[in-house]
Amino acid sequence: MTTRTQTPTDRYPSRVGAEQKFMGRDDPVVWGGGERSGPLKDEHLEHFRTNGFLLLEGVLDAKTVEECLAEVDRLGSDSEVLNSHRAILEPDSETLRSLFEVHETSPVFASLAADPRLADVARQLLDDDVYIHQSRINLKRALHGKSFQWHSDFETWHVEDGIPAMRTVSASIALTDNYAWNGPLYVIAGSHGWYLSFGGTTPDDNHLRSLRQQEHGSPDEEGLAWLLQRGEMATFAAPAGSVLFFDCNIMHGSPNNISPVPRTNGFLVYNSVENAVVDPFGTDEPRPTHIATRDPKPLAVR
Amino acid sequence: MTTRTQTPTDRYPSRVGAEQKFMGRDDPVVWGGGERSGPLKDEHLEHFRTNGFLLLEGVLDAKTVEECLAEVDRLGSDSEVLNSHRAILEPDSETLRSLFEVHETSPVFASLAADPRLADVARQLLDDDVYIHQSRINLKRALHGKSFQWHSDFETWHVEDGIPAMRTVSASIALTDNYAWNGPLYVIAGSHGWYLSFGGTTPDDNHLRSLRQQEHGSPDEEGLAWLLQRGEMATFAAPAGSVLFFDCNIMHGSPNNISPVPRTNGFLVYNSVENAVVDPFGTDEPRPTHIATRDPKPLAVR
Repeated sequence: MTTRTQTPTDRYPSRVGAEQKFMGRDDPVVWGGGERSGPLKDEHLEHFRTNGFLLLEGVLDAKTVEECLAEVDRLGSDSEVLNSHRAILEPDSETLRSLFEVHETSPVFASLAADPRLADVARQLLDDDVYIHQSRINLKRALHGKSFQWHSDFETWHVEDGIPAMRTVSASIALTDNYAWNGPLYVIAGSHGWYLSFGGTTPDDNHLRSLRQQEHGSPDEEGLAWLLQRGEMATFAAPAGSVLFFDCNIMHGSPNNISPVPRTNGFLVYNSVENAVVDPFGTDEPRPTHIATRDPKPLAVR
Repeated sequence: MTTRTQTPTDRYPSRVGAEQKFMGRDDPVVWGGGERSGPLKDEHLEHFRTNGFLLLEGVLDAKTVEECLAEVDRLGSDSEVLNSHRAILEPDSETLRSLFEVHETSPVFASLAADPRLADVARQLLDDDVYIHQSRINLKRALHGKSFQWHSDFETWHVEDGIPAMRTVSASIALTDNYAWNGPLYVIAGSHGWYLSFGGTTPDDNHLRSLRQQEHGSPDEEGLAWLLQRGEMATFAAPAGSVLFFDCNIMHGSPNNISPVPRTNGFLVYNSVENAVVDPFGTDEPRPTHIATRDPKPLAVR
């Protein structure tokens, strides 16, 4: 058991024995009042502020997409990679579902993470220098690709990693075409405005199971319905090269893929350097660094 | 083992030991050359002929929908109904997934089956008097409603029930709003033009398992991809009261429902009286009559 030091007040308690309940968000969505210059126009910022996400098509050119896909193929056929702790397999098979920390282990994804087409958007939204809290490749295979349970990333990152504030933005990058019918990401627009605090506690080494199939920190039917009464369901259906930027606290999930078309997305989590992790707010030990870095080194501005 | 009598030549052999292969369709899609008068306009007929389906909104008025839903509630809370052989439960729970033969056991659904807003469309497409081969209510519960594997209904109805020709049309009736994100029906446009003949054989009493989770008569990834190269994926997303008419041989399936919004659809299969069942083409015993009637009594024209 570690001693907690310098941990700020927990403004977002969760998994502390109480029942599931909604709390108001206590942080801006677009930081710095939207004054910082960057690739996004005012209407983009307004859309992100209201809905908690922004879908942009054509962010990456075909050559970049192709290089990333070739890198995914290379990594996915490397038995050392597949046997490493960075590889998460499907709940019912030995098929690769996610590969973590690619921004550290792959030069191609390191370059993608620092690419100004992505990183400058994160800097603009968070009004700060940024570093990568987590990176991964998410594969959803044809016919048998499984669901992701509904969750807010922030809830997990706060409770299990120690991210203090909602000053974190994710980029989901379509490396193949994402269709409404091949297991796409769903987000509930506006759900980033509420924080869903859960009851219960977090088992030790929860990530060893939760990354295959999440059981803790996922809302019940009533909680989801409450959010859906307040915002529309939005689907990440867009061609390869598109990017969905979404707030760390938006409620999202994805259904299984029964289609014959697999999908491959990159996933990069940008955190403000002023929002670097402290001791976790709900567990004794933070998750391993390949899932959540504890070294907030700013990405070089290109 | 029953003796086969008067069974016509099998133009659509399947599950006869060979490998999966595609064969051309040997029957019209719109029967009688589209000359029979009815509710559908020429452009409707052309759409159905080309794509194998037709989605019409506002077919049923709100009062009819409400009566059907009240009847679903009544049936779903009747323990005698739930314990009957007509009730099919979810693969992983005791929750109702489908309820069969409602056109015989429920006055409300008997009336719906004979409703000219549905039956006259079937008569027009099949150019004949029609009877109900199968009826059911399909429930897909919130969060946990499971997928339906890809399949052509005709393949099963031919092999296991003895329907000779592709002169059968299904109506999927939205009793609640169907969204693209709550486990909707997917169909592959144009796939009705090919018959996918499977290898293998059919186990005895296959329906006891296949209705919970289909394993036989479902195409592999290669077969589905072949169809999807030739036609678009279409999603049955439409408000309550809408009806999707679809050809008996169209390839269709549905993903799980991870959303907090359940959906309830009626399902009615209209068969031409000239296409009544004979002995099954691939099994010794036909499926039970609550799944596939063997009594082709024409619906009264209203």
